Amino acid sequence: MSFFSKIFHPSSYAPSAPSLPYSYDQQGQTYSTTSYPGNYSHQQQQQSYYGQGTSGGGYSYGHSGFPPGTSPDVIRSFEMVDRDRSGFIDENELQQALSSGYQRFHIKTVRLLMFLFKNPHDSRRLGPKEFAALWSCLGQWRGIYERYDRDRSGKIDFLELRDALYGTGLATPSSVLQVLISKYDDGSGRKIELNFDSFVECGVILKGLTEKFKEKDKGYTGTASFDYDEFMSMVIPFLVSYD
Amino acid sequence: MSFFSKIFHPSSYAPSAPSLPYSYDQQGQTYSTTSYPGNYSHQQQQQSYYGQGTSGGGYSYGHSGFPPGTSPDVIRSFEMVDRDRSGFIDENELQQALSSGYQRFHIKTVRLLMFLFKNPHDSRRLGPKEFAALWSCLGQWRGIYERYDRDRSGKIDFLELRDALYGTGLATPSSVLQVLISKYDDGSGRKIELNFDSFVECGVILKGLTEKFKEKDKGYTGTASFDYDEFMSMVIPFLVSYD
Repeated sequence: MSFFSKIFHPSSYAPSAPSLPYSYDQQGQTYSTTSYPGNYSHQQQQQSYYGQGTSGGGYSYGHSGFPPGTSPDVIRSFEMVDRDRSGFIDENELQQALSSGYQRFHIKTVRLLMFLFKNPHDSRRLGPKEFAALWSCLGQWRGIYERYDRDRSGKIDFLELRDALYGTGLATPSSVLQVLISKYDDGSGRKIELNFDSFVECGVILKGLTEKFKEKDKGYTGTASFDYDEFMSMVIPFLVSYD
Repeated sequence: MSFFSKIFHPSSYAPSAPSLPYSYDQQGQTYSTTSYPGNYSHQQQQQSYYGQGTSGGGYSYGHSGFPPGTSPDVIRSFEMVDRDRSGFIDENELQQALSSGYQRFHIKTVRLLMFLFKNPHDSRRLGPKEFAALWSCLGQWRGIYERYDRDRSGKIDFLELRDALYGTGLATPSSVLQVLISKYDDGSGRKIELNFDSFVECGVILKGLTEKFKEKDKGYTGTASFDYDEFMSMVIPFLVSYD
């Protein structure tokens, strides 16, 4: 059993309900998924992964340590992932942890995750708090991925992706999904199928942008207004990643 | 002299005026830069690179051929780039043409350009019309890049980027630029500087998103409303690229 499957085994992390909570911290703000009856979202439950204060126990954790109530499994995962025992997780450590023997987790997705979950003090490394939030989020995406990969191909196709996103509360329009998934077309003419890393990339982008839109659509009208600076500041973080 | 510098020599492609036109064809629609007196844009001139009909002359061009009036330099470039003489340019041919001996043009940027300039019939290859538009656009970005690389370092830093974008009519807020350029931070602690391919990536993303925003802000108020589907459909094309 690979490290990847050990730390992501659905029985320990995946929720049992089809509607999944999700939150991430970006630039110091916390976004939580709330019930949103718009045409692009259905039932979801609110849940916060954040707490206050510190934890510890024989390990020098960066920043403020783990939130109270953090699962011992998460703390154990942190210690396994933090190979240089720095108390922080860098992108290489995260990539190693997410890669299995036969499949490398794409660095592009690692960097997107690092960026979305970064703490305000250190954008290049995750502390325990950020790691706990990211790990929980990834565990949930893993659970969704495995549940919706119905033909057990180890990959998610267009229809499975659509259903999986719908299962998380993202009723993404088919036209949007078509454009999104076309980006993974390798030109071979084969059906487009997503590995777990590409699936996570799609998921966090769609979820993140939807959350941002919802913040501006407080009346649940399905329409939101942005000024130019807001619009650009909202979109850019999901775009280019360095190489 | 490399092929790269030959085909991009500023004397043949770069405009002399500091305000640069720009247009691209996406999903069958043509967007042209128009004068836009908002707080994020200053003087620009409208210019179209598109015509109707066909051209030819001893070469089997894909789709409808070059627009009338296409510069012989562009036609010659097309013939040099189209190494397999298919009448179309694929991403490998484009990457080869844009890479110099000492610097490979990143495939990520090649794919973004292919996507933004694609024709509706064949999203994986450029015909002569699309190539002419892309080539003209790239020649202009090259001219801007060389003009604003004031210290002749061969790279563009934050202040040069800001000035260069302003020079094209994009008065991008500093906060947005900070986030954008932070994506190119390699974590070494060195000052972030952009090669030409990253500069083009930043430029076409900012320009493209700004154009999209302006389409929805016809009254030049600096604020635009989107419904959720529009918002997602607008942003997604600039996001993930396949690998």
